[in-house]
Amino acid sequence: MSKIKLPLRDIEFALFELFHFEEHYADYCPSLDRSLTKALLNESARFCEDILAPLSASGDTEGCRLVDGEVITPAGFKTAYQQYCDAGWPSLARSAEFGGQGLPQSLGIVMNELSATANYAWTMYPGLSQGAMHTIESHGSDFQKQTYLPALISGEWTGTMCLTEAHCGTDLGLLKTKATPVGDGSFSLTGTKIFISSGDHDLAQNIVHIVLARLPDAPAGTKGISLFIVPKFTVNADGSLGARNGVSCGSLEHKMGIHGNATCVLNFDGAVGTLLGEANKGLHLMFTFMNLARLGAALQGIAHAESGFQAALNYSRERLQGRSLSGAKNPTGVADPIISHPDVRRMLMTQKALSEGMRMMAYFAAKRVDIAQHAATPEKRQMAQDMLSVVTPIAKGFITELGFESASLALQCFGGHGYIKEWGVEQNLRDCRIASLYEGTTGVQALDLLGRKILLSDGKLMDGFTKCIQHFCQDPTNAPELSPYADSLTRLHTEWLGVTQHIGALAQQNPDEVGAASVDYLMYCGYIFMGYLWARAAKTALAALATSSDEQDFYRAKLATARFYFERILPRTLTLVATIKSGANNLMELPAEQFAF
Amino acid sequence: MSKIKLPLRDIEFALFELFHFEEHYADYCPSLDRSLTKALLNESARFCEDILAPLSASGDTEGCRLVDGEVITPAGFKTAYQQYCDAGWPSLARSAEFGGQGLPQSLGIVMNELSATANYAWTMYPGLSQGAMHTIESHGSDFQKQTYLPALISGEWTGTMCLTEAHCGTDLGLLKTKATPVGDGSFSLTGTKIFISSGDHDLAQNIVHIVLARLPDAPAGTKGISLFIVPKFTVNADGSLGARNGVSCGSLEHKMGIHGNATCVLNFDGAVGTLLGEANKGLHLMFTFMNLARLGAALQGIAHAESGFQAALNYSRERLQGRSLSGAKNPTGVADPIISHPDVRRMLMTQKALSEGMRMMAYFAAKRVDIAQHAATPEKRQMAQDMLSVVTPIAKGFITELGFESASLALQCFGGHGYIKEWGVEQNLRDCRIASLYEGTTGVQALDLLGRKILLSDGKLMDGFTKCIQHFCQDPTNAPELSPYADSLTRLHTEWLGVTQHIGALAQQNPDEVGAASVDYLMYCGYIFMGYLWARAAKTALAALATSSDEQDFYRAKLATARFYFERILPRTLTLVATIKSGANNLMELPAEQFAF
Repeated sequence: MSKIKLPLRDIEFALFELFHFEEHYADYCPSLDRSLTKALLNESARFCEDILAPLSASGDTEGCRLVDGEVITPAGFKTAYQQYCDAGWPSLARSAEFGGQGLPQSLGIVMNELSATANYAWTMYPGLSQGAMHTIESHGSDFQKQTYLPALISGEWTGTMCLTEAHCGTDLGLLKTKATPVGDGSFSLTGTKIFISSGDHDLAQNIVHIVLARLPDAPAGTKGISLFIVPKFTVNADGSLGARNGVSCGSLEHKMGIHGNATCVLNFDGAVGTLLGEANKGLHLMFTFMNLARLGAALQGIAHAESGFQAALNYSRERLQGRSLSGAKNPTGVADPIISHPDVRRMLMTQKALSEGMRMMAYFAAKRVDIAQHAATPEKRQMAQDMLSVVTPIAKGFITELGFESASLALQCFGGHGYIKEWGVEQNLRDCRIASLYEGTTGVQALDLLGRKILLSDGKLMDGFTKCIQHFCQDPTNAPELSPYADSLTRLHTEWLGVTQHIGALAQQNPDEVGAASVDYLMYCGYIFMGYLWARAAKTALAALATSSDEQDFYRAKLATARFYFERILPRTLTLVATIKSGANNLMELPAEQFAF
Repeated sequence: MSKIKLPLRDIEFALFELFHFEEHYADYCPSLDRSLTKALLNESARFCEDILAPLSASGDTEGCRLVDGEVITPAGFKTAYQQYCDAGWPSLARSAEFGGQGLPQSLGIVMNELSATANYAWTMYPGLSQGAMHTIESHGSDFQKQTYLPALISGEWTGTMCLTEAHCGTDLGLLKTKATPVGDGSFSLTGTKIFISSGDHDLAQNIVHIVLARLPDAPAGTKGISLFIVPKFTVNADGSLGARNGVSCGSLEHKMGIHGNATCVLNFDGAVGTLLGEANKGLHLMFTFMNLARLGAALQGIAHAESGFQAALNYSRERLQGRSLSGAKNPTGVADPIISHPDVRRMLMTQKALSEGMRMMAYFAAKRVDIAQHAATPEKRQMAQDMLSVVTPIAKGFITELGFESASLALQCFGGHGYIKEWGVEQNLRDCRIASLYEGTTGVQALDLLGRKILLSDGKLMDGFTKCIQHFCQDPTNAPELSPYADSLTRLHTEWLGVTQHIGALAQQNPDEVGAASVDYLMYCGYIFMGYLWARAAKTALAALATSSDEQDFYRAKLATARFYFERILPRTLTLVATIKSGANNLMELPAEQFAF
């Protein structure tokens, strides 16, 4: 992979110019002014570019090894993690009460994007920790918090989330891991979990597993799942490490990509754990962190779109092949750089429009994560939460699908060279492929969005969202250049409401209509949402160009990309409306046994 | 991967019922009646399922090794190749004059599909041989034919095509490998070729390389390229093997997939070769085999779509997860099979409609390969050749792009399990990704189709194609059930002509309009073409259902799949028309240096 240059200028555009995070932080974290935010971004970017990025390819090649029951991470991972902890990054957005810096979650999300873009497999070690910390912060007893949070927040220990078993992923109601009370208030856990990211490794002294399991008297299905904290090493009363607990890595999964991350089969064999939160409410409690985890998976889409785009752009500027049909662009060279060819530009512009568009989408969500947590009134918090409940499945599903498309286009720009490991774009594509599978597949996100969120609320959860679009389209201060975008969004806004009502009406007759429409509907929402964001970006760029900005090129590029999005990407909604409206029959009529002969 | 079952019933449907190959073969190869064709298909399928398929996963894991300058293929590959030769498969469609069986090329294409589906990496060894044989058959001197063809046709030797160099793939005019006459009529070749599939291996005694190189006095660019035959071992006058020639494998490429195939860097260091065909006409001569090679790459799309679909279908029938929203489908089990869920069906139906549709497209082309070669009159041959010149880039570009989409959907059906090596679908996706890169990227196919074929012929090369569609739509014998398909195709037919004229007009002003529209145009043509084929399949199925066929389920499945195609896949043309018409400006306005800041 060519050396990564984290897109700080674009990040600042989205944060400060588009979404006004400086003003936002003034409400929730007054110390975090623009200058401090930029300083933190710069420092993090330097670490990610200099330390993490060089370990991405070697981490892929070397992978993780299971030696005598212990997982060894690729060379350099441990040292990088130590540097990461020494610089205080794990504690950035964590509670000050237990040693965190108390900065907003949104800033943590942006930082995660940086490290994810530099080295996704490595980022999953501290990434999973954040999930565990968040769950303990939200649902742990004081004792659990005091026992586990300080060392997790410092990064001395890491955490995992142990959900999946061989026979159940999406359908967690089927899980079998048992937790038996041993009489002293603790539990003995027995069962096997699979696909446990960062499940064992040599980066930290201890690993704190958050485990879904069933109590002996638990009701069947999802209503009988409880959460437990199971540390790799038990913790003594004084906080020192005690005995090795009965949890071990049985094997490492052999995966398509993210080889640098240890994806473990974890055997719990009478492992000692404590109940986290109320018994039998585990699935509900888990969803408090699951939404953040889904935004985290969306960041993976951005990361691979961005790193693929950078590689493809560099290659397309340098690779000389063929002559432009409209006249030589490099007449003294043997051929023109392939970026002269319209179809290469189509691929590059698609990647550019998607990666910048995804970034806007993620930051739009990130701002609402802060508001939902910290706003002064319950109404404001609820409004942000409602918005998030719709934006999260869209962001997770839409961004991970388009991240893969983008990563594949990056590879395509290289021609045959893209298929060879040395350029890094094939790793980027392999690493990327997991994103639309874990933390709920795209199909699961789509059912969550359309079924649980939109239809179950009678469309009310769409309100905040559609109002944003209406507000933009009807803003009398819009420059005339924005008219085509506002017109297009106005039309889509009406169409969107109609399509939603159409599905709602059909679903009353046949519940399969929801599943039949769901993924196309999620993508349709995503394209409209991203259209709204690109229209806003164009508005911001036009305003900046109207001043005497010395970055005319930057803002003009935003306008060109917005135009590209509306002319070349947004028309995908035309197909999606047609397929959504085609209904469930064309999916359901064929008996399962007649799919092949 | 679950055990592959080659889709013989579907192959027979396409061959005999849809395209009437029995009648076709009666014209060109009377011995090849339906019963013999089916016997050959069955025998080949048994070999592919029993011998080749089990070596696919192990070939991926083991890969090829370069030991002391010689390439070692994965365990079992050599034995399988020996069995393949012993059964006479390499000679099937080759000239009887040199030991071939003289059966039609189309049958060879179907056989290649079978082995490609079972084990793509292995299939590339005999596959590249076919390219070399075809080139020598078409352009070799009698002496060259006598020297090389018998051992190639028996499979004792294999062949390669050596085109690419590090600095030139698409733009072969830049190639540097030199061929210097040594005075005895032979040439000394020096240069380095990369990405040479099957470039060295241990399956055969000798390897016959067809090499693009430049004579000392050659004009610059594509008009100064000549073809040479360069064997790994020189051949003595009596046909026995002579000295090791100056060509060697410098290294093996590290690739994303097709690990079982040796992709070599080949160093030519004063290697002895003979000129093949006329000097400086190499690029032109190469295209006689390139069109067949492109159909071969299209088969790869079918192969991975088919094998992915089979794996996903088996898994979706067995994996129990969640309950159907429209009521339990497996009430006595812990959950319903995931094929009960509409979105899983959407993914499966997409794979089914695409893999069967691709197969029809490939056989449509294959029939015309026979006609172009053997028809009684030059008019008929030319008509078939014209059709092929349009169908080939569509089949190559469209099928390889959709093969990848299909393989990715197959993986998606597995959820997180799809990302793990043991199920085989991640290998299927990795193996598949090369298909839209080699033998000309999708962008190259698209420029060939729109620029060189359609616009340069003033649309004339479209004629045969559009007449087929018109003929179908206007057939008074069409059953009423076909009306929606005929109506849809009639509308698209008109739209298609309009879109083509639109681009043609724009291109007169700005040649970049061709490249800007080209890939979307290719895909647009592909969807219409496949729509035509699905409509014909529906017609054939309706006719069979009107008889007292005892395969009612099979034909009803065809009708359901045709309906799915028209309702869920063909609407993609809506987006493509919009993006094609959006023109070149949205791609070309951004200066190359302003794609990132």
